[in-house]
Amino acid sequence: MRFFSDNAAPVCPEVMTAIAAANQVDTAYDGDALSKRLDGAFSDLFGTSVAALWVSSGTAANSLALAALAQSHQSVLCHDEAHIQIDECGAPEFYTGGAKLLLVGGEGAKLTPDAVTARLATIRTGDVHHMQPAALSITNATEYGLVYTPDQVAALGEVAKARGLGFHMDGARFANAVVNLGCDPGDLTWRAGIDALSFGFVKNGGLSAEALIFFDPELAAATRYRRKRAGHLLSKGRFAAAQILAMLEDDVWLRNARAANGGARRIADAAGDRLVHPVEANELFVRMTADEAASLRAQGFDFYDWSPGVIRLVLSWSQPDAEVAALGAAIAAL
Amino acid sequence: MRFFSDNAAPVCPEVMTAIAAANQVDTAYDGDALSKRLDGAFSDLFGTSVAALWVSSGTAANSLALAALAQSHQSVLCHDEAHIQIDECGAPEFYTGGAKLLLVGGEGAKLTPDAVTARLATIRTGDVHHMQPAALSITNATEYGLVYTPDQVAALGEVAKARGLGFHMDGARFANAVVNLGCDPGDLTWRAGIDALSFGFVKNGGLSAEALIFFDPELAAATRYRRKRAGHLLSKGRFAAAQILAMLEDDVWLRNARAANGGARRIADAAGDRLVHPVEANELFVRMTADEAASLRAQGFDFYDWSPGVIRLVLSWSQPDAEVAALGAAIAAL
Amino acid sequence: MRFFSDNAAPVCPEVMTAIAAANQVDTAYDGDALSKRLDGAFSDLFGTSVAALWVSSGTAANSLALAALAQSHQSVLCHDEAHIQIDECGAPEFYTGGAKLLLVGGEGAKLTPDAVTARLATIRTGDVHHMQPAALSITNATEYGLVYTPDQVAALGEVAKARGLGFHMDGARFANAVVNLGCDPGDLTWRAGIDALSFGFVKNGGLSAEALIFFDPELAAATRYRRKRAGHLLSKGRFAAAQILAMLEDDVWLRNARAANGGARRIADAAGDRLVHPVEANELFVRMTADEAASLRAQGFDFYDWSPGVIRLVLSWSQPDAEVAALGAAIAAL
Amino acid sequence: MRFFSDNAAPVCPEVMTAIAAANQVDTAYDGDALSKRLDGAFSDLFGTSVAALWVSSGTAANSLALAALAQSHQSVLCHDEAHIQIDECGAPEFYTGGAKLLLVGGEGAKLTPDAVTARLATIRTGDVHHMQPAALSITNATEYGLVYTPDQVAALGEVAKARGLGFHMDGARFANAVVNLGCDPGDLTWRAGIDALSFGFVKNGGLSAEALIFFDPELAAATRYRRKRAGHLLSKGRFAAAQILAMLEDDVWLRNARAANGGARRIADAAGDRLVHPVEANELFVRMTADEAASLRAQGFDFYDWSPGVIRLVLSWSQPDAEVAALGAAIAAL
Repeated sequence: MRFFSDNAAPVCPEVMTAIAAANQVDTAYDGDALSKRLDGAFSDLFGTSVAALWVSSGTAANSLALAALAQSHQSVLCHDEAHIQIDECGAPEFYTGGAKLLLVGGEGAKLTPDAVTARLATIRTGDVHHMQPAALSITNATEYGLVYTPDQVAALGEVAKARGLGFHMDGARFANAVVNLGCDPGDLTWRAGIDALSFGFVKNGGLSAEALIFFDPELAAATRYRRKRAGHLLSKGRFAAAQILAMLEDDVWLRNARAANGGARRIADAAGDRLVHPVEANELFVRMTADEAASLRAQGFDFYDWSPGVIRLVLSWSQPDAEVAALGAAIAAL
Repeated sequence: MRFFSDNAAPVCPEVMTAIAAANQVDTAYDGDALSKRLDGAFSDLFGTSVAALWVSSGTAANSLALAALAQSHQSVLCHDEAHIQIDECGAPEFYTGGAKLLLVGGEGAKLTPDAVTARLATIRTGDVHHMQPAALSITNATEYGLVYTPDQVAALGEVAKARGLGFHMDGARFANAVVNLGCDPGDLTWRAGIDALSFGFVKNGGLSAEALIFFDPELAAATRYRRKRAGHLLSKGRFAAAQILAMLEDDVWLRNARAANGGARRIADAAGDRLVHPVEANELFVRMTADEAASLRAQGFDFYDWSPGVIRLVLSWSQPDAEVAALGAAIAAL
Repeated sequence: MRFFSDNAAPVCPEVMTAIAAANQVDTAYDGDALSKRLDGAFSDLFGTSVAALWVSSGTAANSLALAALAQSHQSVLCHDEAHIQIDECGAPEFYTGGAKLLLVGGEGAKLTPDAVTARLATIRTGDVHHMQPAALSITNATEYGLVYTPDQVAALGEVAKARGLGFHMDGARFANAVVNLGCDPGDLTWRAGIDALSFGFVKNGGLSAEALIFFDPELAAATRYRRKRAGHLLSKGRFAAAQILAMLEDDVWLRNARAANGGARRIADAAGDRLVHPVEANELFVRMTADEAASLRAQGFDFYDWSPGVIRLVLSWSQPDAEVAALGAAIAAL
Repeated sequence: MRFFSDNAAPVCPEVMTAIAAANQVDTAYDGDALSKRLDGAFSDLFGTSVAALWVSSGTAANSLALAALAQSHQSVLCHDEAHIQIDECGAPEFYTGGAKLLLVGGEGAKLTPDAVTARLATIRTGDVHHMQPAALSITNATEYGLVYTPDQVAALGEVAKARGLGFHMDGARFANAVVNLGCDPGDLTWRAGIDALSFGFVKNGGLSAEALIFFDPELAAATRYRRKRAGHLLSKGRFAAAQILAMLEDDVWLRNARAANGGARRIADAAGDRLVHPVEANELFVRMTADEAASLRAQGFDFYDWSPGVIRLVLSWSQPDAEVAALGAAIAAL
């Protein structure tokens, strides 16, 4: 029973069906009929005109977004536990040509306007010795499964705009955030100042396609070249577009995230005081002795040791009810 | 009837079946059971111990290969019509951190030992003003559908080794070359001095997976980091591995290439003196007036205008016999 | 008697005096009084408002200029024997983050509008597979000592502007060109469409300072950061500014170039039919057998073997008259 | 009376004399007689065979050193207030092609073995998601004027070697550290595990030359290309070499640093309890109200406001005794 990562989960049936249906001759790269539908589909979803590009990983989406917002001699503010800082082997530096991530602390990998403002204050505007800030990047839901509300995003957006920064959201688990908030995706993004969104599908039931959304379509122009230059312009792009369109249709993306969040909620109820953070998406960080963790593993549960005394559990869209119930019971029984 | 590009062709059934079969929980990235089989499968195929990494495009494979062979202050020799020079939007420069492609001419996008030797002679060894050559890259089959024989590769390999260069083969159409030659894949690669091979599957019936083969497995070590850093370490890598393994099994890759080459052969017979180059793979370059080209298009044939008076035809693994026959007849009737 | 390179020549007395005079406390980097005078001095010289930055080498000036004009996924057209292509160990690629130099041929390292137009025609506008051209770079005087006239520059400038390209002039020997033409420096640059000029001083009697001139001062903004980031923002920048100001004052830069060109003229007269190119600046390319070259060397003349049967002679601002006379006589006597 | 920065100070007479003496024809770049003496001069100084390259700024020296030790997908540990992190506009990222600086805290910008060990423990060895550490960089004297002893360096060197890291010392104020310690330069560097040293001369009385020392001469090979590629291979390199040789001769570098440190010592005695850090080199950080700072400025003293309630004073090699006495008295009188 795997609670290790939503990355390892299966692909949802709608996506598999769409891939099979896309298997016919069409124009290569992103000249096919499906790829051409992306801009419209996301413009409808967000209620504004956007440019949407498929890429095959969240790391590619994040890095292309940052490269659109920051030049190589500039810097990007993010949380010191952000995925772009910790887990992407320097992809932001690679794609931007060496921009620096300026780190800001905060509980649960969440940034606050005050913390960002304070960090910005340490950089002298116009001083050529300092990499001038050009972008702010947040993750929603965060790496600890916390969710920024539209108001919280908007407050950060104001800080960003006041300093002239672009604003990026790493939405590897954007669906989980939207489901938790029950909000309009537009309220959580462009109406709150977001310029570029890495809209994750793979963790949420996709196979190999993420969407990179630019709320200012102009920002996508150079990105199309950078995507090619990075080897991310797939020959048979229709299969990437097909995955995304399948998950947008009938709100499959929300259904899947609801399932994952729901499972997490049930485990959270069982874990009670053991929780390190509130559970707002599909991840749980649970205090546990090494013996307790070993006991769970002996019962067949697979998960990640986060830090001494803390394990991480991630629920996927496809987690069987029985597994969730079993894990909840096992934790309650510790 | 599309003779535009093998990129646009469908995915072969074995690959689709393998993707469906891979749809179950497994370890993320390349920790799954299928990805772990790649080194062995390619080591068996080539008759030597190799490291094999999946990536999602030929551009990524080529660029990662070059980054393993050349540092940012060095240079790579290639044909002046090579895909890496013309069609990848600077991916080699991006991945190597700015290495320069040194261009060499040659009929049909083929390099000769003499031409490479002459180009190398223009670079003063040890002169810090000159980007010292570090690698030689050839495409087999070439961008014009010509094939290097094992002896021809080996002759270039000797030139490369004599100057201490790494030797890369862009094998986007490697299968087509092997089928044409009827040779052992090892004879066309490592036994002829090749260090890294971009082994193409997408043009030959795959969906989104190419294999990057290092004949010296040590070369793969840093590449694993560079692949992650480029956003090419897919979360659900098992689907990439599944595609490749399916095409290796029962020699599907050879069967598909045989079909494509065979179709090209039939068109070539019809085109006769119109051919600009010998037809050794699945591409044809055919002399044709604008009126003749228009006439073919009016009959429903879709293709690429290569240069004034020359069209390009590409046959795919799935080209229906009837389409091939029809095109052959139409050309003969011009 | 060294006719090897103007790089090796001494520093002219005005520069040495200015360096000595600058040796007092002042603000670091480019905050000193002398550095602040550069914009004005060059604006006066060119008759338009410019931004002028000192850097310590022509390679740095060229590369910073190109980085201001081309993004990493774009390309720069230049002659295939341009210094930026051949002799800078990939500095343009380094500073631009991997932009590609697209090469154009032409006699004497000179580009013509037709040749540039033809090269541009090979790049499909808006095709993401092709690095879109963003800049044109010429060298004046060229690497073969030929000079572009204001009209010739303007004709290239028109081609550049028509395609939306920035236009850079590598003026390592700009002084020699201006002296040859007897023209207004503004006519040879911004009035002919030049956006950025590497204005060389070191070969012409300076010690370690070149000027990078932006005719659109806005272009300098990001360059100030890139200069720092490249380690070219010197702590004691006043010594760089002092050199440049000393050479502008009383037209020392023209006097020095006149001396070098004049020496070349005298050797040219002696060389007659041996000349490979017209002599328009301070370089000569002279046909000569290996025996003849050896004979000159035996008489104490030092120079560079350019290619089989051709030697290169470079005259410096400080070449003693006697040496010039001796070399002329020696060549005439061969 | 400027206590703002040692960067702004004059050049010492020996250097000016050496520059004047170098003003004669010699081979360009680093082929001249003076440049060729550098390896030997520094090998003598350090008591081991080294490779020594001149560059024109500390930023260039630091970045070239890091590029020799870390690849673009790797990381470099340094203090979170290190010059390479704060004040070089991303030069390390530029030169390494995007390596990441991993930050470590510590009083007075000093690292301890424990802090470094703890930071290293957060990076999973061999995990491709994490930029693997490749180098450790310290500044001696630190950005707060503290000095690492040979034993302290050696203890860090052991940590570095145990993890396979290269070890770099930013010695912008190396002279001040050596003078403070009265130690053998070899004991403070290679015998303590240092692989590359940025040996500063400009802050200590030089004009525009720093030395980059590789204690493993092999490390210099690629650096020679990178120096050219960065535009730091000066045409008339003899003037850079001359500066350095002049400061090594008769221990001018030690004499100058002794003067600067001595001045700082005198101010420190006057400042007493106001000192934020011990004064071990030529910098002082002094607690002071805004009114007190204004009073000093009104008396003609120029300095830098470091942080609320703290000013920074830097003594140069040429600080007049009277200025030092006056400042000491003024502080004592506050």
